[in-house]
Amino acid sequence: MPRIGRTGELMWLRLFQRFAQPPGTLQRQLCDMLVQAVAQGFLAPGAALPASRTLAAELGLSRTTVTLALQALTDRGILIGRQRSGYFVAPPLPAASIAAQPDHQALAGGAADWRARLQMQPSAQRNIVKPTDWQGQPYPFIYGQFDGALFPFRDWRACALESLQPQAVRRWAPDHLDRDDTALVDQIHRRLLPARGIWVERDEILITCGVQQASFLLAMLLIGPDTRVGIEDPGYPDARNNFSLRSAHVTALPVDGDGLVLGPKLAGCEYVYVTPSHQCPTTVTMPLARRQALLAMAQRDDFVVIEDDHESELNFDSQPTPALKSLDKSQRVLYLGSLSKTLAHGLRLGYLVAPAALVRELRALRRLMMRHVPTNNQQSAASFIAHGYHEAYLRKLNRVYRERAAALHTALARHAPTLHAVVAQGGSAVWVTGQAGLDCQALAERLYPQGVVVERGDIFYQTGAHGQQQLRIGYSSIPLERIEAGVKIIGQALLGSDTRL
Amino acid sequence: MPRIGRTGELMWLRLFQRFAQPPGTLQRQLCDMLVQAVAQGFLAPGAALPASRTLAAELGLSRTTVTLALQALTDRGILIGRQRSGYFVAPPLPAASIAAQPDHQALAGGAADWRARLQMQPSAQRNIVKPTDWQGQPYPFIYGQFDGALFPFRDWRACALESLQPQAVRRWAPDHLDRDDTALVDQIHRRLLPARGIWVERDEILITCGVQQASFLLAMLLIGPDTRVGIEDPGYPDARNNFSLRSAHVTALPVDGDGLVLGPKLAGCEYVYVTPSHQCPTTVTMPLARRQALLAMAQRDDFVVIEDDHESELNFDSQPTPALKSLDKSQRVLYLGSLSKTLAHGLRLGYLVAPAALVRELRALRRLMMRHVPTNNQQSAASFIAHGYHEAYLRKLNRVYRERAAALHTALARHAPTLHAVVAQGGSAVWVTGQAGLDCQALAERLYPQGVVVERGDIFYQTGAHGQQQLRIGYSSIPLERIEAGVKIIGQALLGSDTRL
Repeated sequence: MPRIGRTGELMWLRLFQRFAQPPGTLQRQLCDMLVQAVAQGFLAPGAALPASRTLAAELGLSRTTVTLALQALTDRGILIGRQRSGYFVAPPLPAASIAAQPDHQALAGGAADWRARLQMQPSAQRNIVKPTDWQGQPYPFIYGQFDGALFPFRDWRACALESLQPQAVRRWAPDHLDRDDTALVDQIHRRLLPARGIWVERDEILITCGVQQASFLLAMLLIGPDTRVGIEDPGYPDARNNFSLRSAHVTALPVDGDGLVLGPKLAGCEYVYVTPSHQCPTTVTMPLARRQALLAMAQRDDFVVIEDDHESELNFDSQPTPALKSLDKSQRVLYLGSLSKTLAHGLRLGYLVAPAALVRELRALRRLMMRHVPTNNQQSAASFIAHGYHEAYLRKLNRVYRERAAALHTALARHAPTLHAVVAQGGSAVWVTGQAGLDCQALAERLYPQGVVVERGDIFYQTGAHGQQQLRIGYSSIPLERIEAGVKIIGQALLGSDTRL
Repeated sequence: MPRIGRTGELMWLRLFQRFAQPPGTLQRQLCDMLVQAVAQGFLAPGAALPASRTLAAELGLSRTTVTLALQALTDRGILIGRQRSGYFVAPPLPAASIAAQPDHQALAGGAADWRARLQMQPSAQRNIVKPTDWQGQPYPFIYGQFDGALFPFRDWRACALESLQPQAVRRWAPDHLDRDDTALVDQIHRRLLPARGIWVERDEILITCGVQQASFLLAMLLIGPDTRVGIEDPGYPDARNNFSLRSAHVTALPVDGDGLVLGPKLAGCEYVYVTPSHQCPTTVTMPLARRQALLAMAQRDDFVVIEDDHESELNFDSQPTPALKSLDKSQRVLYLGSLSKTLAHGLRLGYLVAPAALVRELRALRRLMMRHVPTNNQQSAASFIAHGYHEAYLRKLNRVYRERAAALHTALARHAPTLHAVVAQGGSAVWVTGQAGLDCQALAERLYPQGVVVERGDIFYQTGAHGQQQLRIGYSSIPLERIEAGVKIIGQALLGSDTRL
């Protein structure tokens, strides 16, 4: 619980000008102002007011006026007076006791017309929405979140503590302009990428705020209004939205049990965004033969592959398939890696691999966008990987996820036999298809009040007309022993007529 | 010093395929591969190799071949064999002893033509460049960096430790999609903004990765190819570059001793970027009357003011001027605040204040760009402000900077009388103009080998034809007692003919 700071930093005169209600005595106006400031949260419960002498001087009022106002508010229970230490804001009151006059400051004429000024309207895009209170739900079949029971708090803490040593702070605190932390680049260069079969130079690596920023940078730099971009359908909505922001020619490419289909829709694409390790959202892995065929096509038809190596670290097989990038002999694959899934989403850490000439431009663009990824987190993450904690954590996640996936498949077969599930070869979710007529949105909405969080499938398709029968059921945040009970509730809901179109 | 992790995560077969030099025995090829892997840093000094049995299985070689190769490299001093624990990479060797064959893997035909694919070339923009080794220089008159002698290590550590408690990690670790940390929004809402006279609602605040990201978001959302944007000249190059990325109509607006001139060049501007608190780079403060006149013009001529409240926290006067935004009655001012200067640049923390409808779009755009600002740092910063450490740090910075500014002005008058200095009313740098013919770039280059870091002035102007006689001399990173000696060196350099055009 943070201490409540002093309120000496407020500009009292401007507070007075803003909140005083003109008709009435100055004392009355001062009372109004203080009541408003408390009601609107600018003065927090427990905060100390300045000495009446100081306040009077700042507001240009007599000290008597101020003293009388403070006394009046003390009588009303809004302030508390303490002998020799002055006045403090009282603990929170029932809302009714404060006349919470809303701030009706009418805008002066000539306000800007913001709608007319917008060059785009990103809020109108279809996107994944997650309930903010999912952590309080008993059956969080939510995707890509965080399980406090698995996270190695002690290991992360040890690494974060290293980055709090004065010598380490001296390294990360200055403005790094466009540079990355060399220790993290080193770990990616000689540990994370080689584990995917990828051997590149350090100047082919750029640290990003997650895969999200990597795809945004590529969209900005490489995609213009007429560029043709293909993306898996169903696919990753956040990447699709990034490309749609730049080009009107985003093509939906079909997916089968081996991932992206190498079909006629690829013709004319200049960029193809693909998730070969575990297709998002279906989780299937693209076999080696198809990978090689895709690369051969890219070279023949002169397109570039953007490989999002989605959840490659989460693999129930002992032999992971090498990344597309590791097979790339003509620098046609741009590679996106994430540390969010395996470290923590909130840290926003990822990386991008591209030819050095392209990284130079991406780095200059990232500088414009935010300069660099916060350096203290880069240092902590580098140390987490260097100590071997990251590998140990991945082994643990794989063991636990394998168990959870098995339990989920068993429970689905028993309690929700109308759902057809794609068998999880890795990753952290199961993709299921219900019977004709299932309305996934209605189902998700019906399940939520019962404490079951699942993700509707339609959001992964370019047009909402598809995926109405589909769901993504995540298991990265739900304990093993809750899985069956949660699936039982899903099974019951499927019987109700209100979950059908 | 991090321990060296095991190398079990390498894909050995792909390493072999990549680095083995085909002509020669398999044993020879394996040696080549290992030498290359060590030379290129994929195998770090001290790293343990897998057991020979494992390696043989992964590579499809006989165990004898592997054992002989490892033994041969041990004889060459590249590996070290330890009884019962296996082989390890030897400590770094003189470069000559490793035949560091560069990787000449020729690109297969059909590589992508990246130059033709670029939609923009941000690396070509003129920008501030800072030497990476400035911390090792005796006279770092560098701008906006970090002084380890002033930073409250203990206070920051205490706040960062709070955010490492398991309960706190549970709050920051999940994916927050487009949300901000409520504790940091609260501190900005009821402490930082009211200290600038600004009283807004919580939904008018967006956390950003510094002012850099705030200006990029605004440029993306509001500025199109034909939008006319005005920016101070000299002005902040990173903002100018952001606007130039979007529009070909960026107008240079003159500046005088009171900041932005309200002259004819403002006509037709749809957006005006301004730094009224301390003009960047001249450090002058815009008086209240000019602020009011600027707002009246904005309303009359229907333009929007982007207020970068640059270094408002660093004020040697006891009475800071209220922000433009605090005077704004028609929601025409978009406000950018920074925590970089006063917390630490490397953390990349700032905020943006705008009408709620605009914040909604900016938030959706930020989601596409990176989702959200790393939440662990948001929590630590919120706690740093809530505990009052931020205010205490600001008081300390102001006290120390006032002394340094005075010492700098005295030293300049004594040792470099040909430089005309703008008197610092606050901020962290002094802006100086030399005599006709001074070549600031040549001067900066001549000073650097003598351990003196200063910033050339031309970079702050839209065209490099201006500012050749000007310099920014920062004092946020140089100790008081070094100032005079550093200025003496500047004074001597000014006498040399090689610093004139």
